[in-house]
Amino acid sequence: MNLDIRNNTLYFGGINTVELAKKYNTPLYIIDEGILTDKIRDLKENFLNKYDNVKVLYASKAFLNTAICKIIKKEGIGLDVVSKGELYTALNANMNADDIIFHGNNKSIDELKMAIDNNISRIIVDSMDELEDIIYLTNKLKKTTNIMFRITPDVRGKTHDYISTGQKDSKFGIPLESIIQACKIAIDSEYINLKGLHFHTGSQLFSNESHLKALRVAFSIIEDLKDETKYTIEELNVGGGFGVFYSDDDTEMDFTHFTDEIMELCEELAKKINIKRPKIMIEPGRWIISKAGITLYEIGNIKDIKGIRKYASVDGGITDNIRPALYNASYTCMISNKADEESIEKVTICGKCCESGDVIIKDAKLPKIEKGDILTVFSTGAYNESMSSNYNKLLRPAVVMLKDSKDYLIKRREELKDLVSRDLVPEFLQNI
Amino acid sequence: MNLDIRNNTLYFGGINTVELAKKYNTPLYIIDEGILTDKIRDLKENFLNKYDNVKVLYASKAFLNTAICKIIKKEGIGLDVVSKGELYTALNANMNADDIIFHGNNKSIDELKMAIDNNISRIIVDSMDELEDIIYLTNKLKKTTNIMFRITPDVRGKTHDYISTGQKDSKFGIPLESIIQACKIAIDSEYINLKGLHFHTGSQLFSNESHLKALRVAFSIIEDLKDETKYTIEELNVGGGFGVFYSDDDTEMDFTHFTDEIMELCEELAKKINIKRPKIMIEPGRWIISKAGITLYEIGNIKDIKGIRKYASVDGGITDNIRPALYNASYTCMISNKADEESIEKVTICGKCCESGDVIIKDAKLPKIEKGDILTVFSTGAYNESMSSNYNKLLRPAVVMLKDSKDYLIKRREELKDLVSRDLVPEFLQNI
Repeated sequence: MNLDIRNNTLYFGGINTVELAKKYNTPLYIIDEGILTDKIRDLKENFLNKYDNVKVLYASKAFLNTAICKIIKKEGIGLDVVSKGELYTALNANMNADDIIFHGNNKSIDELKMAIDNNISRIIVDSMDELEDIIYLTNKLKKTTNIMFRITPDVRGKTHDYISTGQKDSKFGIPLESIIQACKIAIDSEYINLKGLHFHTGSQLFSNESHLKALRVAFSIIEDLKDETKYTIEELNVGGGFGVFYSDDDTEMDFTHFTDEIMELCEELAKKINIKRPKIMIEPGRWIISKAGITLYEIGNIKDIKGIRKYASVDGGITDNIRPALYNASYTCMISNKADEESIEKVTICGKCCESGDVIIKDAKLPKIEKGDILTVFSTGAYNESMSSNYNKLLRPAVVMLKDSKDYLIKRREELKDLVSRDLVPEFLQNI
Repeated sequence: MNLDIRNNTLYFGGINTVELAKKYNTPLYIIDEGILTDKIRDLKENFLNKYDNVKVLYASKAFLNTAICKIIKKEGIGLDVVSKGELYTALNANMNADDIIFHGNNKSIDELKMAIDNNISRIIVDSMDELEDIIYLTNKLKKTTNIMFRITPDVRGKTHDYISTGQKDSKFGIPLESIIQACKIAIDSEYINLKGLHFHTGSQLFSNESHLKALRVAFSIIEDLKDETKYTIEELNVGGGFGVFYSDDDTEMDFTHFTDEIMELCEELAKKINIKRPKIMIEPGRWIISKAGITLYEIGNIKDIKGIRKYASVDGGITDNIRPALYNASYTCMISNKADEESIEKVTICGKCCESGDVIIKDAKLPKIEKGDILTVFSTGAYNESMSSNYNKLLRPAVVMLKDSKDYLIKRREELKDLVSRDLVPEFLQNI
């Protein structure tokens, strides 16, 4: 990690993190626009500009809000959404429907209608049931819609079970034995335009193995379909899942470890079956936004259980970062106001929620920790804010974006009144 | 379980669950006021009225909103809160400060000040750091505050690691070696009124063993303190943790299995050290509200992977019930519109979120399941709504309360515009 340390203090995006904590309060999510756009520009230079007929879609489930949409739009890449909520957020931020694709294993009729009505670029059809729904809707609306099929490639990415998605025993995708039939139905449907296939083998992967295996599976489908129907698949969406560094457990590869070998194998496989190499789409989410994000906390009570463990509590926890409890995820951290000081003790960083699972980092190595210190947890840009909750009625943090050494609030902190804003009191309780 | 089935349809609180799903849409949380108040009345009959000098506090982290507060108030029991958010919700609903106690391992100065300003009945002091903060605040405000100390009894409840809280290696409570000193400091503090001790050994317990062990620890502290200072502890809060039935994995005991033996042992131990038996407080949360709650979902896409597994997707998931993913929790379910039909297949109920961990029930035994069926998941009253999130930008469900065969909305469903209501667009992105 390249750290910007001045006068024993951690700077991020050119700004003093202790000052940011003071100005906006803690816990605080921070997104550095510089790191975010650098990541996108890296994708442009080493993928979009390196190969023709390719596309990048930001997997917005990692973190999405209005400002993020506008950066995605400004940078000219596309967006992958998985719900009407994500689609609404994108359209509300003036994203072009042409740059949006729609995923999900259980899209409702409402969601499909919203996607079709808004001319979303591609619906990624996840099941035969969904195909039926789309045929019904497009026939009814007399409106042509572009689709891709998500296949279950029967390939298992090496990652946490919860985020491994390509194995046969998965809720996601159309099983291999049904995919040709699904394609045939789509080809024969008046208002459906079958553009291609999609797979996603898992998240937080450190090897391209499962992508390459799944590619071979996809090309054998393309070949079978061509043989049986003369229909040529034009697009192949190979998902994301490119792993990032959170802690020393992770051996992050350059994303070209994935894309270069994917592109090479695509060329080879396309040549073999005598078709033009399909348009290749990738869907990085975590890879784009993870490192652009940090979380600032203030250290509260400290409990040193001699010979057992030292606990330091922060003013957030499982509510703003559930990943350690949910996936046993690791993070690294630093005391912002002691950035130059040597690590001399092991401290377990826990949250303020009422359960023992509320741990952010187990046994972090840190300088002498004290109440009032500001703690920076790194690489929290992905799946922290997006999974946040009001457990214990904690208020969800603000999000601040940094650009050119200036700070901008892009999501305000929740307030106490927000906690009861949806509450209604039935008549029989009104005089109590 | 006592089920109310009429014409092959599940009724809950006297109301047709399929009609409720139609009226309010799904996913839908439902709380039956009848079951909830029956639970409270059971506590009254078999604890509050059976013993003198005892108190019940509802552990509001399980589920709290304005209507729930009013029921708690109406029924005349107290409330345990763990954050300014929970405290605000309670005060905003006209709960008496006298009936509220304040827990938490890392209360902020703001939270402590709010508790003191509002004359909250007891602050449960979790650490030496917190004691210092309270002394500072009460001296500054010249305002007397009642406290209890949470001790770490060095007793491990038999439950999931995340919700086992009494072991020595815990962020919670004051270690045994410091507790006498803490009590002495409190006794000597001008504006602090030391009322008693608290422990909590864990949640979802099926044996009273850890409570009884911790009681002996607490009484030995009371004895030591009396010997050293002549100060007699008047109150003992023994926490909650009484396990409830979710599925056949759980062998629920009557709560008197806990309370009767606790009371008996208290009398015995008090006599032994020659003091009046302290006031005993208990803090059931899950035990009060769990079974009063069900969640209704609509079945969406179904994927039958022959020889491997059948998946049926619902329109919610990890966003409205994270407990299976987080604690490997089990639930039972039923198809509301096929309530009389025989179970003929095993179906894994999964959600619509983009990850494989998004499972509600693995291999549920159900009648033939079809798209459009309404699924009832039982015992979701505790820790479902309270832990809910907007992951994948799903909208958090409405909560409906049933009373005397009538239905009342007590929390409105989130709307799309709520998802962006806290978003702000920085100047440099405003023309995009």
